[in-house]
Amino acid sequence: MQQQAQLGILGGMGPLATVDFLGKLTRLTPATCDQDHLAWVTVSQPGIPDRSAAIKAGTDGPGPFLTKGVAWLAAQGTKLIAIPCNTSHFWFDQMQAASSVPILHIADATIEELQLSQAPIGAIAILATRGTVQAGIYSKRLLANGFDLAEITEDEQTDVDQIIKDVKGGQVGPARDTMRVLLQALVGRGVKTAILGCTELPIAHIVRAGDPHSGVQAIDTSLALATVSLRRLGYL
Amino acid sequence: MQQQAQLGILGGMGPLATVDFLGKLTRLTPATCDQDHLAWVTVSQPGIPDRSAAIKAGTDGPGPFLTKGVAWLAAQGTKLIAIPCNTSHFWFDQMQAASSVPILHIADATIEELQLSQAPIGAIAILATRGTVQAGIYSKRLLANGFDLAEITEDEQTDVDQIIKDVKGGQVGPARDTMRVLLQALVGRGVKTAILGCTELPIAHIVRAGDPHSGVQAIDTSLALATVSLRRLGYL
Repeated sequence: MQQQAQLGILGGMGPLATVDFLGKLTRLTPATCDQDHLAWVTVSQPGIPDRSAAIKAGTDGPGPFLTKGVAWLAAQGTKLIAIPCNTSHFWFDQMQAASSVPILHIADATIEELQLSQAPIGAIAILATRGTVQAGIYSKRLLANGFDLAEITEDEQTDVDQIIKDVKGGQVGPARDTMRVLLQALVGRGVKTAILGCTELPIAHIVRAGDPHSGVQAIDTSLALATVSLRRLGYL
Repeated sequence: MQQQAQLGILGGMGPLATVDFLGKLTRLTPATCDQDHLAWVTVSQPGIPDRSAAIKAGTDGPGPFLTKGVAWLAAQGTKLIAIPCNTSHFWFDQMQAASSVPILHIADATIEELQLSQAPIGAIAILATRGTVQAGIYSKRLLANGFDLAEITEDEQTDVDQIIKDVKGGQVGPARDTMRVLLQALVGRGVKTAILGCTELPIAHIVRAGDPHSGVQAIDTSLALATVSLRRLGYL
C-alpha cells in the first residue's frame, strides 16, 4: 500500500453490519474531499463460526479466526483495530494478546458515549445475542461504571434473536417490525435507555420522533465504535 | 487470515462510493446467514491524488498508489480485484500489469449489464468526470459494442462535476437536487439511457417511478461492478 492504513477492521460478523459501520465511519468524518478521510483496511470473514452458539456450547470455533484476523490487521501497520461485532468481544483478551496493536473494545466505546449522553438514562436494557448476554460483555462494564440494568424477559430476548436473524438473512423489513414491538414493550415498563448491543440491531432501528416507541433512547454500539475510533485517531 | 478473501477491493475513491459498493455487493449476495457471504478485503486509500485533475494535467500522481494498491490486494491471495472508481480506470493497463490477479474493468461490467437490459436504450449519455470523458473510458467501449452516444452539453457536464463534488463533500441533499435538474434536461431532449459513470453519482440518484425525470434509465456502474464481481466468483 502507498498510503498507510490507520484503522484495521475485522468484519463479516455480519456482512451488512460491517458495511453499516463503514458508512458511519465515513459519514462521521469531517471531510470536504476524499483526501480528508481516514485510510483503513477491512477484512470481511463471514465464514467465522456463529459466535453466540459457540459461547452457549462452550466451544472455541471462532477463536482461531478472530486471533488470526486481528494479527493480520496488526501486521499491516494499522494503529488501531475495531471489530463491529459485539459477541466476538467474548474473545477480546485472546485477540488483544494476538495483536501488537490496541483493539478498541466495543463496550468501552459504548460506555464512553453513554457517559456523554445528556438524556436521562435510568436502568439500561441490554439488547444483544444470548452469547453476549451470557458472557456479560455489557453488564459487567455497566455495573462497574455505576449504571443500573433493566431485566430482559424471555419474550423480549426471543424478539432480539429474531431481529438479528432477519437482518443477517437480508429481511430488514420484518426485523424493523419486530424492533417496533420490542421497543414498545420496553416503553411500557418505563425503560428509558436500551443498548443495541449487537451490530445487526441498528440496521433494524428506524424510529421517527413521533413514533410511540421513540421514548427509548437507543445507544447504537456500531456508531459508538465508529465515533470513538475516529476520536482515538484524531479525526474527531 | 483464516478465511481466504476472494475479492480484493481498492477503495477510497471516494470513501462513500466504496461503502455504497460494499453495500450493493452484500445485498446482492443470495444469503440467509453470515456464512453464505463472500469473503473480501478492502483497502481504502482516500489520499490518492485527484484522478480527473491528473488526466487533465497529463500527470501521473495516482499511478503509484493504484499499482501498489492492486499489487497488494493480489498478494493477499484474492481471485479477482474490483475498483469502485471509474476515473481510476484510466490507469487500467498499468494496474493490470502490476497485478497477478484479474481486475474486473468497471466499463466491461457495465456493458455486460447494459447488454442484458430489456428497456429501449437509444443514444447513451455518459455522466462522468471530465477525466473519464476525456480518456474515453466508456465511449470507446460503447462504440466498439455498437451503442450510440448522446452528446453532453457544457452545462450538463458542470452539473455532473457539482454532483460529484457535493457527494465527496458529504452534501448528498444538494447533489440529489442537481441530479434531478440534470436528468430533466436529458429527458427533454429524448435521452432514454444514461450511464452513471462515476461511483459518486448513484448516491445522488434517488428517483421514484412517478418523478418527471424517471424517463431516463440510469445504469449504475457501481451496481454493475458488484453484480459482475459476484457472477465471476460464482455467487450469482
